[in-house]
Amino acid sequence: MKILLKNAKILTMKNPEIFDGHIVINDERISYIGKVLPTGIFDQVIDCENNLIMPGFKNAHTHSAMTFLRSKADDSSLHDWLFNEIFPREANLREGCVKELTKVALLEYLSSGITAVLDQYFFPQEFAETCKEFGFRSVSLGMYDKDSRPVEEVLRLVKEYNVPSSIATFVIGMHSEYTGTDEMFEATDKLLKETRLPFYTHLSETKSETEECIKRRKMTPMEYFDSLHFFDNGGAIFHGVYLSSHDIEIIKKHDVTVVTNPSSNMKLASGIADIKTLLNSGVNVALGTDGPASNNALDMFREMYLVTGLQKLRNMDPVSIPAFEVLKMATVNGSKAMGLVDADVLEVGKFADLIMIDMSRPSMQPINNIISNLVYSGSKDCVKMTMIGGKILYRDGQFFVGEDIKEIYKKVQSLTEELNVIK
Amino acid sequence: MKILLKNAKILTMKNPEIFDGHIVINDERISYIGKVLPTGIFDQVIDCENNLIMPGFKNAHTHSAMTFLRSKADDSSLHDWLFNEIFPREANLREGCVKELTKVALLEYLSSGITAVLDQYFFPQEFAETCKEFGFRSVSLGMYDKDSRPVEEVLRLVKEYNVPSSIATFVIGMHSEYTGTDEMFEATDKLLKETRLPFYTHLSETKSETEECIKRRKMTPMEYFDSLHFFDNGGAIFHGVYLSSHDIEIIKKHDVTVVTNPSSNMKLASGIADIKTLLNSGVNVALGTDGPASNNALDMFREMYLVTGLQKLRNMDPVSIPAFEVLKMATVNGSKAMGLVDADVLEVGKFADLIMIDMSRPSMQPINNIISNLVYSGSKDCVKMTMIGGKILYRDGQFFVGEDIKEIYKKVQSLTEELNVIK
Repeated sequence: MKILLKNAKILTMKNPEIFDGHIVINDERISYIGKVLPTGIFDQVIDCENNLIMPGFKNAHTHSAMTFLRSKADDSSLHDWLFNEIFPREANLREGCVKELTKVALLEYLSSGITAVLDQYFFPQEFAETCKEFGFRSVSLGMYDKDSRPVEEVLRLVKEYNVPSSIATFVIGMHSEYTGTDEMFEATDKLLKETRLPFYTHLSETKSETEECIKRRKMTPMEYFDSLHFFDNGGAIFHGVYLSSHDIEIIKKHDVTVVTNPSSNMKLASGIADIKTLLNSGVNVALGTDGPASNNALDMFREMYLVTGLQKLRNMDPVSIPAFEVLKMATVNGSKAMGLVDADVLEVGKFADLIMIDMSRPSMQPINNIISNLVYSGSKDCVKMTMIGGKILYRDGQFFVGEDIKEIYKKVQSLTEELNVIK
Repeated sequence: MKILLKNAKILTMKNPEIFDGHIVINDERISYIGKVLPTGIFDQVIDCENNLIMPGFKNAHTHSAMTFLRSKADDSSLHDWLFNEIFPREANLREGCVKELTKVALLEYLSSGITAVLDQYFFPQEFAETCKEFGFRSVSLGMYDKDSRPVEEVLRLVKEYNVPSSIATFVIGMHSEYTGTDEMFEATDKLLKETRLPFYTHLSETKSETEECIKRRKMTPMEYFDSLHFFDNGGAIFHGVYLSSHDIEIIKKHDVTVVTNPSSNMKLASGIADIKTLLNSGVNVALGTDGPASNNALDMFREMYLVTGLQKLRNMDPVSIPAFEVLKMATVNGSKAMGLVDADVLEVGKFADLIMIDMSRPSMQPINNIISNLVYSGSKDCVKMTMIGGKILYRDGQFFVGEDIKEIYKKVQSLTEELNVIK
């Protein structure tokens, strides 16, 4: 399959430059990108009519299948929310649920121009299977679980999914220091040594979580994981709202990414991460939506606006975090966090994971600065097309994922009603 | 013209209840709303297919024509921004510009489900004329201007536009206390006494503005305007980030609305208004986008999410400002702020200013709580139709405003390039 995208404005994300040009996609990868219109025979020619082509957004922290909990317990306190609303409902999850619940999230990612996510949840194999079916790029956390997922099972998942050109791969993770047991730390240590994969975990999301770890271990959560050598192969921490300067040194030493989730941290009143200091320290910062129960949208435009807006407030300085830095967080920095070296910038040989931004939406007009328009006035309605691995999965508001959308909604609604009955 | 909207979910905003029903629109007003499908002959029947019909959003503070400054000077300090970027470019505005520049903003309002705005800018008559042409409901500030708009001219505007069923009306305003001169205060006093219209102004947006007023006048800006009796006919203040408890007493005494602009206050690092205290004091709080130079989107979904999110952060309490309160701010409270008694809730006899929310967008699924979905995961792409005064001005991504959209963009782009040359 050979596709020509002609007459586009192109932002490769190798630099902030935008040029008028054309792109050829050969099967799943980019085979040409340049200013001269290529000749030849194409299976499909799309006139971009001066719309912008850029890399898709990378959502570096989410719990996709939590769609069934969206809008279920907003405006409640964190403790109530977790222990009385979320946990008892999650206990109802049985085999086959995550596979279905994931679908609504994948549709929302596509509508927001997201072409890859780093997901962490129960039944990760079901999540990976849905991604494969849809053709959606993902990285899942392989996590040890005493009851359902022994070390051998995680190793089996890694072996099965981490094959060349796989669209759904695995890395190693744990939920967090504060939910970890000695047994879990030992199992995770084995997994990291065996696979040499990077490590991912929630870390210092709230003040109390961080303080309680210091009380228990005389170490911050980051120091504790460092003492276990869990980040020796790199990886990422999710949230990082309460990091010490020593934590930042460790983060830099192992080239760990901090995935910030501004909406979730705001909505759950966790706080505002110090992104300015992290960037000034040279840390790779990526963006995540977190799950639909805590955000509640899976919308990278929201995260981009908030990550810069909240820094401006935190520092009482409107200069904080310029637009191109934000766009990097939402794209190439996310690719780095997820180890997607072939799905980052637009370049010959890379996966064709790209989006078309509709420049004729009123919020993209007039054109003083396209990058500022994207970050400060962009929204989901500006996403005209989403392509992953050379396949158009979303265009002009329609989804092309090989399934009837109404059927997906019906199944998820029925599961939602079933799972939300607390037993 | 008689239109039937059938098979809808209906949220009247008289209460949080949502019911399945039908609506008939006769010319510009609602003539039926109920659960029984009406019979008869209709010029147009729209099957809503279980999508939600609700009142359009009311944007209670904006400067529409500032579209030419969108993305022009982001990430710069407030003083630089105003004095080196905004003011010199606004000085280039000449007759005929505001009429055109307004159009892009009106399109964006329609795409965001906004059916009325309270606008404040130069050349207000040009703004009102564009609203009339498009069929867009607006209220403009009639403001005295030494050079261009004497008291008699403002009175003439009020007389010409404030006629029964007018879609574009005028109230009385001033930019702010800190830009006011004795001459302006006197002229405004005359206008208020002559017209008995309510009064609108920017007030206590920044800490320094508020402190400097106290230094100069031994009064807060609110106390000063109260001493002049400017709020004796009611009205609204824009921003109100730094209000004292005495200010709030004055606000309550005159039933003044506080229009909060969370995005703008965040992006310009002005601060977070204390909305929780205002609501607890029984103040009418409405929502505004502010202008496209300071926000930069004209998107009520963004403002709804932020007004509750930022309160959760400000109070470090995720319970702050429940979703239905937020939806009231974005609709009926805005109508009250603008004096639009006939364009607030959905009810027989009221203007048909309403929107259809596409419940088949992934961020609206599954359905646990439609009001939470709107506030926490809603976005522009969920707006399927926008109707003002019984006329469909936006549907399925297309605009119906009697003009070619590409031509509008071309003219505005050319004006933008011309006006942004600082002489």
